Amino acid sequence: MDNDRFVIGIDYGTDSCRAVVVNASTGEELASAVKYYSRWAEGKYCDPGKNQYRQHPLDYIESLEDAIRESLSGCPSGTAENVVGIAFDTTGSTPVLTDENGTPLALLPEFAENPNAMFVLWKDHTAIEEAAEINELARKWEIDYTAYEGGIYSSEWVWAKMLHVLRADKSIRTKAYAWIEHCDWLPAVLTGVVKSEEVYRSRCAAGHKAMWHEKWGGLPGEEFLTALDPLLAGFRGHLFSETFTTDVKVGTLTKEWADRLGLPETVAVAVGAFDCHTGAVGAEITPKAFVRVIGTSTCDIMVSSYEEMGDKLIPGICGQVDGSVIPGMIGLEAGQSGFGDIYAWFKRVLEWPLENILSQTTLIDEATKAKLIKDTADQIIPILSEEAAKIPARESTILAVDWMNGRRTPDASQAVKGTITGLNLASSAPLIFRALVEATAFGSKAIVDRFLENGIEINSVIGIGGISLKSPFVMQTLSDVLNMPIKVAKSEQACAFGASMFAAVAAGMYEKVEDAQKAMGQGFANEYFPDEANHLIYKELYGKYIALGRFTENSAIFAGNFNSPSL
Amino acid sequence: MDNDRFVIGIDYGTDSCRAVVVNASTGEELASAVKYYSRWAEGKYCDPGKNQYRQHPLDYIESLEDAIRESLSGCPSGTAENVVGIAFDTTGSTPVLTDENGTPLALLPEFAENPNAMFVLWKDHTAIEEAAEINELARKWEIDYTAYEGGIYSSEWVWAKMLHVLRADKSIRTKAYAWIEHCDWLPAVLTGVVKSEEVYRSRCAAGHKAMWHEKWGGLPGEEFLTALDPLLAGFRGHLFSETFTTDVKVGTLTKEWADRLGLPETVAVAVGAFDCHTGAVGAEITPKAFVRVIGTSTCDIMVSSYEEMGDKLIPGICGQVDGSVIPGMIGLEAGQSGFGDIYAWFKRVLEWPLENILSQTTLIDEATKAKLIKDTADQIIPILSEEAAKIPARESTILAVDWMNGRRTPDASQAVKGTITGLNLASSAPLIFRALVEATAFGSKAIVDRFLENGIEINSVIGIGGISLKSPFVMQTLSDVLNMPIKVAKSEQACAFGASMFAAVAAGMYEKVEDAQKAMGQGFANEYFPDEANHLIYKELYGKYIALGRFTENSAIFAGNFNSPSL
Repeated sequence: MDNDRFVIGIDYGTDSCRAVVVNASTGEELASAVKYYSRWAEGKYCDPGKNQYRQHPLDYIESLEDAIRESLSGCPSGTAENVVGIAFDTTGSTPVLTDENGTPLALLPEFAENPNAMFVLWKDHTAIEEAAEINELARKWEIDYTAYEGGIYSSEWVWAKMLHVLRADKSIRTKAYAWIEHCDWLPAVLTGVVKSEEVYRSRCAAGHKAMWHEKWGGLPGEEFLTALDPLLAGFRGHLFSETFTTDVKVGTLTKEWADRLGLPETVAVAVGAFDCHTGAVGAEITPKAFVRVIGTSTCDIMVSSYEEMGDKLIPGICGQVDGSVIPGMIGLEAGQSGFGDIYAWFKRVLEWPLENILSQTTLIDEATKAKLIKDTADQIIPILSEEAAKIPARESTILAVDWMNGRRTPDASQAVKGTITGLNLASSAPLIFRALVEATAFGSKAIVDRFLENGIEINSVIGIGGISLKSPFVMQTLSDVLNMPIKVAKSEQACAFGASMFAAVAAGMYEKVEDAQKAMGQGFANEYFPDEANHLIYKELYGKYIALGRFTENSAIFAGNFNSPSL
Repeated sequence: MDNDRFVIGIDYGTDSCRAVVVNASTGEELASAVKYYSRWAEGKYCDPGKNQYRQHPLDYIESLEDAIRESLSGCPSGTAENVVGIAFDTTGSTPVLTDENGTPLALLPEFAENPNAMFVLWKDHTAIEEAAEINELARKWEIDYTAYEGGIYSSEWVWAKMLHVLRADKSIRTKAYAWIEHCDWLPAVLTGVVKSEEVYRSRCAAGHKAMWHEKWGGLPGEEFLTALDPLLAGFRGHLFSETFTTDVKVGTLTKEWADRLGLPETVAVAVGAFDCHTGAVGAEITPKAFVRVIGTSTCDIMVSSYEEMGDKLIPGICGQVDGSVIPGMIGLEAGQSGFGDIYAWFKRVLEWPLENILSQTTLIDEATKAKLIKDTADQIIPILSEEAAKIPARESTILAVDWMNGRRTPDASQAVKGTITGLNLASSAPLIFRALVEATAFGSKAIVDRFLENGIEINSVIGIGGISLKSPFVMQTLSDVLNMPIKVAKSEQACAFGASMFAAVAAGMYEKVEDAQKAMGQGFANEYFPDEANHLIYKELYGKYIALGRFTENSAIFAGNFNSPSL
């Protein structure tokens, strides 16, 4: 134990910050802690009706300090002294406007309660108009700056978001000097970097969300940005042209932060990255493996060699960025905008009589009623899964299209909608649920097929995240539909583990990320193998899924006054 | 009161026999009684898994006697003595095989417990294969015997059913001499008609279900029937070539039946008819009114003058028969195979957590639990209707096609299925329910349009039956979609009232059915008027409904292994 060295992986999720202390040689987890963001938990600064989701920088700072201190307190004595590295992953694109010193505006007293001065969370959709303008301008521009981001800029990404808050809020304009992504801010803070221009910017964030590419010398040109809106004038010059992969050391802890965290000043701090990309590393991504973080939506990550990729542009995915996952390989991102969320939607539909009728009864006391409703609701998805799993694929007679939350890839569209067909009077809740699970698997196949059609080989799937570990029925269906084996990452904390691998590389324990993966990998909990007979049935159904989706998308069936209420 | 004369209308439904005693001059109801079929109520002779639904002739006899005796017992003294007529409507096609004496085989001791010797209820679907063979042969035959029944013979109709039981059951073949419809059997029994050949056959039943038409001299030719199956040889000769409208008197009560029912032997017995046709008369059908019995499914009835109809054949409806509703006019039948059944299906889906999860709880005692589940389930459709009615048409963002039980008209098909599209994560149970209600209204419009396209004028709708009286939301939506006013018949017993009008005509109280309608009509409970703004929205949605339905029907999306389990 004397020679053991330790690293800390920090995973900032939507609601909380998780710290994991890991043995840098063996990958063994010593302790972990999760701290929820206190202001966010109170619903502050958000307006779900407008899809406005903002997070205060102090939520990140306070939860970080608490999570690290608590996790270290659960380790054997002597651990903290032997921590050699720390690395971060965060949600993204989650940027904030900063002043000249790289300070998020909300940390200045005058903007302390101003949501426009805070981090704009990945799922904030207030910048839909700005994204549309970026896409319109990009179509006309000499250079297509969206080319490496799948060809369509999203309202979830940094330039749209920053332009939106600048437009929406005059008060912040004079102080706004630059912007920073959450994943870049933490390393800068902990290593004492002050000026915006000196921040080590994540290749992952810049390449996937900020239209950064070497080919055009970094960020989009000043002319493009000012053509978009003169409000953006000067920002480019305050930002960056160089970006860094996650094996790079930003620096070491400042004295102040070493004290606050109870760690030595020698701790190396790595360049940050986004959660799915880091999670893919934690789950031991290799070329030809399709890695999926499967939760409410999916984030799908692949790595491809320079030889395999060549000059090709894969249309309709969420981006292809050199080194965004593993340095020396092209990182590819895709994803489904609804996965677990679709099951949760069906659960909400089935809960309606509980929430709206049973809740009014006076036959039983309020406490029993609340427990009865909660217990019943909690069992809906588990029991639906159990019942749906008993139905043979051949008797799965309902066909659904999984676009209830739009479609992220292939070919992003917020206009498409979900469909369920093949319904008859015998269509029970488990039969419908089975169709929804099949539909999410067909949506996965559409992404896999897009990669295959573009010459990216895929021979297996690695699942990460809640649904991977919790729903054998969903995972078996996915394996059958894709006709591929699926391994499920053992760790529920693949993102934090991936960050710990980056920390170990940045600290010089390993030369390459792949070496850290080999030494520190947690392995797999489970493996699913495709059932050939089911695959043949699904192959045919998949053709019908594609045809049904195409019809609803192209027939103007959702056009005219038949619009959804704005999200 | 001294000069008052009374008539009795008998309505045989799926589960019960209803008798209504009515003042033949004023239409005033003196009393009524309902008697459930005892064997049927026990589930005897049925096999829902095979869609086999059979009814014992004694169920009809016993319930008739009880219903008439009970209703008379509720009338002022002297009423029975002044009853002058009785008439029947029944479900249909609901035929039975008989011996030479017109006796249903199940009344012979050796077949008393044999379901194949009993009445084959309208909704029995055991004869799907036989119907397909009839259609196949009809397409090849010189004369298209299905021409006046919409061009497609159904498994619910007499020839398919009788052939099916003959094939399925060798034991009954030697005794089977002819067949009889339920609506023809009762008048024959009560008036003492013995021989099959002497039974007064209903024009309504024969024309709509038995391929009877004057043009080819009655029933289909012997060659056609024996080509279908030699088992049918000879039947045609034991049946009929003449048919009768419901204004015709079959005879008077036999002494035995007069005694059993407590009525004078002078009571005139009218020719029988099917329930919807009789209900349309009871609800004061006139030309240009589209009359709908709206329940689990709809049965839609119109009458058209000889001038308006000319020689035209309206494709894809359930038949056009001279005098099947009102003598001297062409009766037209159509209908939706799912209406209230579609709402009931959605209710069953929403009940799933109650029936499968809440039902397992041990938090409360069994009796409270049962009551809680029942109370909640009972409120689902009322509260869904209330909530759905609050949603403006413009915000109804889900589109459904109402073919969950196949499509009866226009253009019968058992292969089509229901669809719901436009779904997103905000699609709540009330939004889905609203879409289902709109879909059933669109299905209604498709029928109305078929009539209009064929030159049958329609300027209003008359609603009869449960949903018409119970759901203002459904009726308003229907009015908005059709852009027509809808009157709702006041009486919940329009069928029995229609029968009482026939009884009055057969008894000589009126010259024509129209005269009886005028004198005895119950009037309307309510009238709905279309909202022009909503109609414009629905007009556009209807185009999308048609396109979506056409796509699912024509795209082979339900072909191949994507079949429903057999019904």
